[in-house]
Amino acid sequence: MTEQLDDLADLIRDERLRDLRVALDDLNTGDIVNFLERLGVKNRAVTFRLLPKDTAVQVFDQLDQALQHEIVEGLKDTDVAHFFESLDPDDRVRLMDEMPASVARKMLRHLDARERALTNIVLGYATGTIGREMSPEFVAIPEHWTIGQALEKVRLAAMDAETVYTLPVVDGHRLLKGVVSLRELMFTDEDTVVGAIMSEADSVDADHDAEDAARMCADRKHLAMPVTDKEHRLVGIFTVDDAMDILERAESEDAARHGGAEPLNRPYLSTPVLTIMRSRITWLLVLALGATLTVQVLDTYEETLEAVVVLALFVPLLIGTGGNTGNQAATTVTRALALGDVASRDVFRVLWREVRVGLTLGSVLGVLGFLVVSWRWDWDVGAVIGLTLVAICTLAASVGGMMPLLAKKIGADPAVFANPFITTFVDATGLIIYFVIAMAVLGL
Amino acid sequence: MTEQLDDLADLIRDERLRDLRVALDDLNTGDIVNFLERLGVKNRAVTFRLLPKDTAVQVFDQLDQALQHEIVEGLKDTDVAHFFESLDPDDRVRLMDEMPASVARKMLRHLDARERALTNIVLGYATGTIGREMSPEFVAIPEHWTIGQALEKVRLAAMDAETVYTLPVVDGHRLLKGVVSLRELMFTDEDTVVGAIMSEADSVDADHDAEDAARMCADRKHLAMPVTDKEHRLVGIFTVDDAMDILERAESEDAARHGGAEPLNRPYLSTPVLTIMRSRITWLLVLALGATLTVQVLDTYEETLEAVVVLALFVPLLIGTGGNTGNQAATTVTRALALGDVASRDVFRVLWREVRVGLTLGSVLGVLGFLVVSWRWDWDVGAVIGLTLVAICTLAASVGGMMPLLAKKIGADPAVFANPFITTFVDATGLIIYFVIAMAVLGL
Repeated sequence: MTEQLDDLADLIRDERLRDLRVALDDLNTGDIVNFLERLGVKNRAVTFRLLPKDTAVQVFDQLDQALQHEIVEGLKDTDVAHFFESLDPDDRVRLMDEMPASVARKMLRHLDARERALTNIVLGYATGTIGREMSPEFVAIPEHWTIGQALEKVRLAAMDAETVYTLPVVDGHRLLKGVVSLRELMFTDEDTVVGAIMSEADSVDADHDAEDAARMCADRKHLAMPVTDKEHRLVGIFTVDDAMDILERAESEDAARHGGAEPLNRPYLSTPVLTIMRSRITWLLVLALGATLTVQVLDTYEETLEAVVVLALFVPLLIGTGGNTGNQAATTVTRALALGDVASRDVFRVLWREVRVGLTLGSVLGVLGFLVVSWRWDWDVGAVIGLTLVAICTLAASVGGMMPLLAKKIGADPAVFANPFITTFVDATGLIIYFVIAMAVLGL
Repeated sequence: MTEQLDDLADLIRDERLRDLRVALDDLNTGDIVNFLERLGVKNRAVTFRLLPKDTAVQVFDQLDQALQHEIVEGLKDTDVAHFFESLDPDDRVRLMDEMPASVARKMLRHLDARERALTNIVLGYATGTIGREMSPEFVAIPEHWTIGQALEKVRLAAMDAETVYTLPVVDGHRLLKGVVSLRELMFTDEDTVVGAIMSEADSVDADHDAEDAARMCADRKHLAMPVTDKEHRLVGIFTVDDAMDILERAESEDAARHGGAEPLNRPYLSTPVLTIMRSRITWLLVLALGATLTVQVLDTYEETLEAVVVLALFVPLLIGTGGNTGNQAATTVTRALALGDVASRDVFRVLWREVRVGLTLGSVLGVLGFLVVSWRWDWDVGAVIGLTLVAICTLAASVGGMMPLLAKKIGADPAVFANPFITTFVDATGLIIYFVIAMAVLGL
């Protein structure tokens, strides 16, 4: 496979496009996507134009938004219009979000009335809500219909609808009454009324947070969930693959922020070095600015340092351990928040747990630190290190556990507060604790 | 909702079990799961036993493995046997993995012949492979059948099979020839032969890594994928909700390891403090041991420190910046690896990118550092800090980018190598660079 892709890359370099087209025919959609993701902008556009129309639409669907946008930019206007029409309304809206407003408007105008109306429904909801990610093309079954009628409707609609495996059931006012699965329809007698076999609908409000809705869909193992408006009228449906897309984007964002960088939103190897650098520099500067706090603290205690230089030796170890402890707590709580295992109101339960965990961890490390340092240096230096470890670990675990909850409460991203910010905070306060303990124990 | 759950907790405390049973009737499966996850072991077992049988099976299916295990331990033997029988073979195997071998064997013996045979198929594959996670209960359609025959088979099998929406098509030797979706069956003429409308199957080998297979299922937006043996004979199927379970477990593991702790494998609030502490202490000790390297390095340069104490002030800032830069690079590459955007063989492409990113970041920070430190202290100290920042950022980004790829190559978990190990490594080497530059510039 790997070699095959390298061969294809050679074909592009040698401009043997006819051969490339033939070679692409042998690949499945997934492989073509992998191949495109590894190419530069220009070669990607060239290769994409060689694909048969049907394959192109499928491949496009699986690419990251940033790459989709670049590809559309490389197509001729007539091609774009045709292509745009073949997308699902929700995918169309996601692509429009990436484009200049003028281009987006022009493309909307090219659509036929029905497609434009569907697209406008999705466009009506705010970014980040599930309304913006749902599909307005669903098959709803009136509750008084028989199963025979319902199956007939499914047969007629099967091509257009986003899914036919989970079917929302509505009353005469489009109010959502329940859901029924195609599986249930298939093994029930044709004359039974749908209302009699439907089950309670696990639906979500269109204004609901998209990530939260996706997590719900995943946790409850639904293939699709109906989306309703405030009056509980059916407005759309979102499927498990929409949910997985949303969760994957959210995980990528969390992972990046956790590592102190902005998400790239595109495959690593196809991202220009300058873009990668820009995704990191702001965070790095903010963190470095935060770290100047440690310079201030050490500057304040410079006389103490001058008197007992040996204290300087343990600075990286102490703040490193504090950072690690805080990081462990923050990661655990952030993940628990993401999975819905913990909520903002659990703040005191979390604090009480983390204080105990931190104290236990600190005691173990503190005793070890005391023994090793006493043996190698002096017992009083050992006592300083031991006590500092206990204090720093307790502080770090508590702060690390609280920060994600605090972030959630003020509407910030919990992942942001994890590693980098906690480290900075714990570094500075940890150093103050260190010198206060040192001055007390050493009698400076 | 929140208040409602608190009220339920009150009912347990007051031992008003009859009222609790009535109250539970009003909740949907998802809410019951949330409620159980927040209870202690004992109250959870009590509450679980109050659930109607059908609800109990559904709820059980959505709980974490550790909680499932605890619940089974609290049930009577006859209940366990009945309960065990109602699970799907793949869920049964996952539960057995958590139990003592003797209990697992006893439960296997209670199953009827068919269920035992199905369970043994799954048990035959190694932990961590997709064979261990797949369902052996599938509906396979012979390729020469008509669609009418196929639909009839689906109708008969609809209750037992894991899914009927994606149907594998086989020949007379059980060799996988393709797949057909129920949707396609439903709007094609009944007399058409299945082989004529089936599409190429995107299948996966039973020995394939489970996480990798799950990612494939998610990326390619399949509702289910057929699983085959080495001879390409159909042995099972795994569905998108299996895939999401696998991915969620993998993400939790990555998140925990990334934060320097072992995954808890159970909801945070239901985990005993000692278990949390144990999940963190090993890592903390290993990292502290690594950090003693920094003590050694500083000890070596103690004379230099004594001569120019001001150098000590910048230690946390410099190693912190190094750690952050390395962490950013590692996180990006780890995520790219997980998404399949980067492979082990891309090691030089990654290195070359990260060297350039690190050098650019280091130059920006270095110039800023030089200016600020020169203005506040001396120009020669400023030069030391500026040069060290350039060197440390370049080193950290390169090491941070390489480590996950190296880990992958030697079969270790890339997430493990990210944050904690890189920080330790960059801390020690960063300090050496710092003092070498300082001694050269300051002429010590």
